[in-house]
Amino acid sequence: MMSFKTLCSIGNAVSKCETPALLVYLDKLEANLKKMQEIMKKYPGVNYRPHAKAHKCPMLGQLQLKHGATGLCCQTLTEAEAMVEGGIHDIFISNQVVGQSKLLRVASLAKCAKISLCVDSEGNIEDLSSAAAKFGVNLDLVVEVNVGQDRAGVEPGEDVVKLAQKVQALPNVTFKGLQCYNGWNQHIRTITEKKAAVDLVVEKSKKALQVLKENAIECKYITGGGTGTFEHEAASGIFTEVQPGSYVFMDVDYSKNLDESGQPVSDFAHSLFVLATVQSVMPGNRAILDAGLKAVSLDSGVPKIYGSSDLSFFNGGDEHGIVRPSGNLKVGDQVWLIPGHCDPTVNMYNWIVGVRDQLVECVWPITGRGPGV
Amino acid sequence: MMSFKTLCSIGNAVSKCETPALLVYLDKLEANLKKMQEIMKKYPGVNYRPHAKAHKCPMLGQLQLKHGATGLCCQTLTEAEAMVEGGIHDIFISNQVVGQSKLLRVASLAKCAKISLCVDSEGNIEDLSSAAAKFGVNLDLVVEVNVGQDRAGVEPGEDVVKLAQKVQALPNVTFKGLQCYNGWNQHIRTITEKKAAVDLVVEKSKKALQVLKENAIECKYITGGGTGTFEHEAASGIFTEVQPGSYVFMDVDYSKNLDESGQPVSDFAHSLFVLATVQSVMPGNRAILDAGLKAVSLDSGVPKIYGSSDLSFFNGGDEHGIVRPSGNLKVGDQVWLIPGHCDPTVNMYNWIVGVRDQLVECVWPITGRGPGV
Repeated sequence: MMSFKTLCSIGNAVSKCETPALLVYLDKLEANLKKMQEIMKKYPGVNYRPHAKAHKCPMLGQLQLKHGATGLCCQTLTEAEAMVEGGIHDIFISNQVVGQSKLLRVASLAKCAKISLCVDSEGNIEDLSSAAAKFGVNLDLVVEVNVGQDRAGVEPGEDVVKLAQKVQALPNVTFKGLQCYNGWNQHIRTITEKKAAVDLVVEKSKKALQVLKENAIECKYITGGGTGTFEHEAASGIFTEVQPGSYVFMDVDYSKNLDESGQPVSDFAHSLFVLATVQSVMPGNRAILDAGLKAVSLDSGVPKIYGSSDLSFFNGGDEHGIVRPSGNLKVGDQVWLIPGHCDPTVNMYNWIVGVRDQLVECVWPITGRGPGV
Repeated sequence: MMSFKTLCSIGNAVSKCETPALLVYLDKLEANLKKMQEIMKKYPGVNYRPHAKAHKCPMLGQLQLKHGATGLCCQTLTEAEAMVEGGIHDIFISNQVVGQSKLLRVASLAKCAKISLCVDSEGNIEDLSSAAAKFGVNLDLVVEVNVGQDRAGVEPGEDVVKLAQKVQALPNVTFKGLQCYNGWNQHIRTITEKKAAVDLVVEKSKKALQVLKENAIECKYITGGGTGTFEHEAASGIFTEVQPGSYVFMDVDYSKNLDESGQPVSDFAHSLFVLATVQSVMPGNRAILDAGLKAVSLDSGVPKIYGSSDLSFFNGGDEHGIVRPSGNLKVGDQVWLIPGHCDPTVNMYNWIVGVRDQLVECVWPITGRGPGV
């Protein structure tokens, strides 16, 4: 059942790994973890709760807690279960959990860990209260507000009050606060446009806070912001928590974001790679890699070839990548790819191989992977 | 480690499955299997070797053998191992296998099964011969010819002869024939354009055959063709084997292909679905599903919503799908999605749930899934 047969051994050269393999370069990962801790010191009173959807890997989650994180975010129940099973005991599921069997799973998880999750409908709040009552646990419920992404969440207005009151009226659930997250903002390239976009988020969030206040509902928690925007939310004066995820790995898409001086952002380094092998070469024209769209997600663009600015990756289908031109590549050579989008790339692997100085130092299971059950 | 926690039980209603779940509707699957067997009777002397990259599931492979298939194709070594472990003993890896550890894995597999695979470089042939010698086995080598896809394969000319002679000169490897496959042709929409494209494939294949003949190298095997084109290859008079894969499931992309009368192809039915649950509804505007691009691959376009022509799926990110308009959908409703592209969608799941008359009849492990190791 364990289909990943990478017989890579700790202590061996990374070049001995079977490919495609998912690698994390540990020096860079650790630098990213430290950098986040350092940045967040600038924002006292704002916690950071890294998003585990980026890595789905409890070992990595544990490192984030050691670097000052207040707990973890998860997007699916499977991720949440994996993190709790991996010893992490404060989990916020930044998503709705729907369906009888999932409701029981989330309540059961609250036996072992502090669990909060998002709600945006009254029926779901009732269901969560019943499920939590069955197991004699408490669930902290966070009302999700639509702050511009037009996905989940209620509009900032009376509906926020209605849901908060619904939570307050029911047993075994507690109103924790608001989620005000806009995913699209993460990928706005310039600082000026991004700042303007987060200003809109803050405006809508303030509106939601205002209606709560008018109805005498205390709200001490607002969470949101991702790797692309979290410093804006942290500086807003109203957010009490931010949820960056991709900062641990970075990817080609995130590295297109620009800093104040118009240069690509450089706070965090690419630490995630897919190791691929050249399996065919048509000299002068192209080289074929054993890594296609089942090894490196192409949803946000193609990967970059690390350390080689004149070679480009082209979609070669499910199992192949095409490199043009072929450069000096020979059959059997290994190529390091920087994924276009880290989350769905990680999701295709069962293991992540930790590398330092070209040696395999650890192999961590990605127990939270899966289609999102 | 088994992250898919679908606690769906055989005999239960499919509506009790946790979502997202990968479903195969068994009546439709069986109809597709029978239809293929029927079609292939029109082409005596041409075998069909279904491509397991579509399903990666030994149980499904076994059904294909029962319906007249001569063996299976695989695209990765993990798929090949899964099929052999699942009792299938004639496997053609329609791809190059490169790297010391993989060479040993393929040779070791030949202890238990008849294994053939593609080659397109002399060094790789030498390596395969050495690995096969180490285990005292034989590997059947198939020279891959570039017939227009410009991915792997040598040009139809002297290089084909050189590689065939190289195989013939070495121990523990046997020259089996040629692979002449062009993946892009599978998705050409009109019959006329497709026929013209396959004519080019046949022309190049004949050229390869001709140079072999001129060098007195016997070639009794040419394999190629997929679900979109296999009848053209089968009718060509030179192909001895075709490799359709997607016909078992079909997907939105394949259903855009047209038949002689300009209508969408109808030989094979959609049998593959992703079951999703509505988790939020903004009435009149949108409904949010718990299935995003980690549950249904968007690489070849968005899924269709089964049985509902006025609702459309929009990309809602990694874990969400957005349905617009919201129609009559309520929180907790289930929606059946027809994937845009079957192969990478299946690749994200550990299990496929077999359904008949809305009941779960079987749950099959997808043991060949993975990034392509």
